[in-house]
Amino acid sequence: MKKKKTTIILFSGELDKALAAFIIANGAAAYDHEVTIFTTFWGLNAFRKDEHVPVKKGLLEKAFGMMMPRGPKKLGLSKMNFAGMGPKMIKSVMKKHNAMQLPELIDMAKEQGVKLVACTMTMDLLGIKEEELIDGVELAGVAAYLGDASEGNVNLFI
Amino acid sequence: MKKKKTTIILFSGELDKALAAFIIANGAAAYDHEVTIFTTFWGLNAFRKDEHVPVKKGLLEKAFGMMMPRGPKKLGLSKMNFAGMGPKMIKSVMKKHNAMQLPELIDMAKEQGVKLVACTMTMDLLGIKEEELIDGVELAGVAAYLGDASEGNVNLFI
Amino acid sequence: MKKKKTTIILFSGELDKALAAFIIANGAAAYDHEVTIFTTFWGLNAFRKDEHVPVKKGLLEKAFGMMMPRGPKKLGLSKMNFAGMGPKMIKSVMKKHNAMQLPELIDMAKEQGVKLVACTMTMDLLGIKEEELIDGVELAGVAAYLGDASEGNVNLFI
Repeated sequence: MKKKKTTIILFSGELDKALAAFIIANGAAAYDHEVTIFTTFWGLNAFRKDEHVPVKKGLLEKAFGMMMPRGPKKLGLSKMNFAGMGPKMIKSVMKKHNAMQLPELIDMAKEQGVKLVACTMTMDLLGIKEEELIDGVELAGVAAYLGDASEGNVNLFI
Repeated sequence: MKKKKTTIILFSGELDKALAAFIIANGAAAYDHEVTIFTTFWGLNAFRKDEHVPVKKGLLEKAFGMMMPRGPKKLGLSKMNFAGMGPKMIKSVMKKHNAMQLPELIDMAKEQGVKLVACTMTMDLLGIKEEELIDGVELAGVAAYLGDASEGNVNLFI
Repeated sequence: MKKKKTTIILFSGELDKALAAFIIANGAAAYDHEVTIFTTFWGLNAFRKDEHVPVKKGLLEKAFGMMMPRGPKKLGLSKMNFAGMGPKMIKSVMKKHNAMQLPELIDMAKEQGVKLVACTMTMDLLGIKEEELIDGVELAGVAAYLGDASEGNVNLFI
């Protein structure tokens, strides 16, 4: 039998939305779906390494790189961010309930074979280089996304 | 013939997005789809009772409970909220055009058999108890959502 | 063979989300999908003409009309808007990389036969008249959306 497919476009660069994306992705992978997370625009920040990677960039690209959160530990909340107190509260209750934090959820997704894709058009525009992204991320464009999505029926834009 | 399925994850806790979710859900139910609204994160606030329900909670959970809007009448807007003036304006034009307000849309969804689900993981994290939710809401996790979604093709994340 | 269908509800009125919607729509059309973009709530602003169109309106409708951005060139960003500097930066990097701007993407969508739909319920509520919208936009309600979406499997809410 053909495997079910699930695709998630992660457009938003906020912790709560990235958590939702990876919880659904890991759930779907556990139910044996073929899962793709395609990060675009601000969502790409979830796949950035958290250390500074020295690469050559133009001025605008440098500005974007500096202003945007570097990696899953730096993301804010879409609501009640309170200058960073909100994310701390969320992480704190998650720890209390032994829920996996975003970096663990990303690792689990990799282990389960979830395909992690970074949108090449976004990388060009925001000036993010491949060496700035965490390991195990593929680079692809909207055509690859559509190829996956058109064969599945759980296709979410987060 | 098998019924078509529509699922909506209501993640956002804003009035405008909740309205969109329930208008689509009621439309789909009218066209004889089996419809599920699965509320998670801030979306859960749409299912809270609007009165205070005395339940035992930890400090962080109490803080979340107090900071988050209690029920559909208290939700803000995703844009042009203007410290609460935006929602009043929207409700006012809706009244003028005899459009159903969110509490009525929720009641109508229940009458049409739309399955209303509260995400148990969110309830745990934010410390929301079953007795704080409006009647007719089922509790379930991401597995139940995926079960429904993988059989339908209109699957939205709002 | 029956054509694949892709539908996008564009709910958000921000430049970055509208760009994502039209990039996906144009991609899907290039792969020979039948594509519908259904704009509702703030998303409708992407279809407004950028000049003032004199029409009779009530006071609340006038207020909404004035406060909301008029057309694709006026939209802000969902993140890092910085009082309008963000959109300028994005447009500037897009120009540098020869990426199409939103007005061009909308024209391309029309040329490729993407169905552009404005939600009649939103038009009523926000007091937007047909003559205020760009040419080539159809008017329809949630029933028409559901008709298209229930025959496709890439159905996104942006």
